[in-house]
Amino acid sequence: MPVTILDPHAGYVVLINTFTVEPDRADELMAVLSRATEQGMSAQPGFVSANLHVSVDRKHVANYAQWRSQPDIDAMMANPEARVHMVEAAKIATSFEPIYYALQETHGPS
Amino acid sequence: MPVTILDPHAGYVVLINTFTVEPDRADELMAVLSRATEQGMSAQPGFVSANLHVSVDRKHVANYAQWRSQPDIDAMMANPEARVHMVEAAKIATSFEPIYYALQETHGPS
Repeated sequence: MPVTILDPHAGYVVLINTFTVEPDRADELMAVLSRATEQGMSAQPGFVSANLHVSVDRKHVANYAQWRSQPDIDAMMANPEARVHMVEAAKIATSFEPIYYALQETHGPS
Repeated sequence: MPVTILDPHAGYVVLINTFTVEPDRADELMAVLSRATEQGMSAQPGFVSANLHVSVDRKHVANYAQWRSQPDIDAMMANPEARVHMVEAAKIATSFEPIYYALQETHGPS
């Protein structure tokens, strides 16, 4: 499994999508997002990474995704295949909130 | 500036704290979080990284932080110095939602 590097100088668009989910469906949602990434997203132009997290209380799933640029994300969103996967994930989650960010600072231990 | 590595095998606790903020105060909130990290958090035992993001619409600031373990986070939360910084950030933000996660999967381009 690869690792992901967070570097403010890379200039990526960061999409943090936070899903709210019934705890007993968290694994199911993770499986859909994992499959969606492998079968759809990861071959899209400009895709850099997806990082799938489950919250300790299992009420949330978060995808921390990096994309090369906003036009790459717009093209992905307009792709019917990508949309199928998002609809599937949205059906399992009770809600989700995608927010687009720029990484500005990275701090390590002092 | 260092970079941060996301690796599911590292076994860190990931704390994603999403702040909602008036867009014209986003820079002010970022400055407080940056100072809080450099002057307080980064010297705490178990601190691994903090990654500060501003949303494209400037309505959110997100801190993607890695800690070695939950007991390290609990000790930081019980530290009055850390609390001072959190209170300062909370005053600038209109709301914030800290969620604790485990990173389960990292995907790169196919």
